[in-house]
Amino acid sequence: MNAPKPITSLTNDRVKAIRALEMRKVRKETGLFVAEGISLLVTARDNGFVPETLVYQAGTAATGIARGLVTHALNAGSEVLEVSEAVLAKLASKDNPQTVLGVFRQRFADPPGASRVRADTTWLALEEIRDPGNLGTIIRTADAVGCAGVILVGTTCDPYSLETIRATMGSIFAVPIVKIERPAFLDLAKAWPGDVIGTHLDARDDFRASSYRGPQLIVMGSEGPGLSSGAAAVCTKLVKIPMAGKLDSLNLAIATALVLYQVRGPQLKL
Amino acid sequence: MNAPKPITSLTNDRVKAIRALEMRKVRKETGLFVAEGISLLVTARDNGFVPETLVYQAGTAATGIARGLVTHALNAGSEVLEVSEAVLAKLASKDNPQTVLGVFRQRFADPPGASRVRADTTWLALEEIRDPGNLGTIIRTADAVGCAGVILVGTTCDPYSLETIRATMGSIFAVPIVKIERPAFLDLAKAWPGDVIGTHLDARDDFRASSYRGPQLIVMGSEGPGLSSGAAAVCTKLVKIPMAGKLDSLNLAIATALVLYQVRGPQLKL
Repeated sequence: MNAPKPITSLTNDRVKAIRALEMRKVRKETGLFVAEGISLLVTARDNGFVPETLVYQAGTAATGIARGLVTHALNAGSEVLEVSEAVLAKLASKDNPQTVLGVFRQRFADPPGASRVRADTTWLALEEIRDPGNLGTIIRTADAVGCAGVILVGTTCDPYSLETIRATMGSIFAVPIVKIERPAFLDLAKAWPGDVIGTHLDARDDFRASSYRGPQLIVMGSEGPGLSSGAAAVCTKLVKIPMAGKLDSLNLAIATALVLYQVRGPQLKL
Repeated sequence: MNAPKPITSLTNDRVKAIRALEMRKVRKETGLFVAEGISLLVTARDNGFVPETLVYQAGTAATGIARGLVTHALNAGSEVLEVSEAVLAKLASKDNPQTVLGVFRQRFADPPGASRVRADTTWLALEEIRDPGNLGTIIRTADAVGCAGVILVGTTCDPYSLETIRATMGSIFAVPIVKIERPAFLDLAKAWPGDVIGTHLDARDDFRASSYRGPQLIVMGSEGPGLSSGAAAVCTKLVKIPMAGKLDSLNLAIATALVLYQVRGPQLKL
């Protein structure tokens, strides 16, 4: 019978290995990532994710939701570590301490097939996004509008960093994430059966006044440079978000949310 | 004639005093704050802000925009410090090094008078907002929709922290910021001549389907708890943002942006 394994040593090899997942290089090598806190772990379970390792602070999982997470992990054959408060403090992030964390295997989905994608779906592509908090917030918003998936184009920040995971508030477990190189993405966009939508400063159409033929592929440019000329060239709809005064840009997560709600609006009901 | 003062010592008192503005306590005592980078400083100047102190790295302000900022500060009688790269590295934030920074006096505006507020204006109130990045992004978005001002209700994070300033991308210099205690805010909301708008999970009206009578006062609850019952009670319109699937919340800056664009939408044109 699978049982929790107690750990009190700060220099335990398992503790060191989990802590090393703070580093992008180690996440890449192992294909693992860390999610902290009961709320995220419940969302993971609800979406069919089983942790490779579940870590909880001794004395905090006798009852309730935490107990359920431990039982679920034990039944699924996960490694379960019962650690001291000091060990957990070493593993968990300083600014947001939690009593439980899970180590999960990263998932990357295949790109949507342009010939098979359903007409009532919307995909979101992000060009070379750099800010982990923005990326997490965007994944959360994509979940909120029922996006089919988020496509990371080219060199981006890591969707499995702790900062991104935390900003997703669990949506990382619900939204398929695709990684794709720029040339392959441009080919996909060219073959896309519905509208390919981008925001551009030179666009003449208000994003609120357009209609968007499904399946929609929304492409958002990077923080700062905005939409690349290559991506703009494959868009079938270039639109602009109106702004008051002298401003010419919004935070990327904000601009993305406005476009997502506009495009997905007809499918969203209270 | 006012002239730049060279500083190369890391232990110079002025260097220490500026560095101390990283601390909220020191910002509160002095009423000062730091803004980094040419873009923010240009926005400050364009909005009539004169730095108390301008700091630039020796050799980087001979020409161009940086030169103009130095001349502007000298002409306005500001203290201007020409510092070595090592001194600037000590003063500037590590993750986003800049060659110029300004020390400015904080401004807080008076609350709008309910009897005098213009019908075509929109004010945004934030209850006990805690996340500095969210606050900065919200101020930036409020600027983008031409909000009359942002009202910070109760105990909030500091709008003049470096993280918030940076997230505003300069909008901190354009948007009036008001601080108010909760009882005074509730009185203001009760006397408000137009709609007082809040988002609430129990609301039955889709935020996109409502019309909003000006002047509008939008009230957004804190991250996590959402709108307080006290604030909900003074709202004339409680609305809900539809979400797909099982989600019941958005990032606060995202939810605020969606409501701001909906309410201010009729006034925004390309």
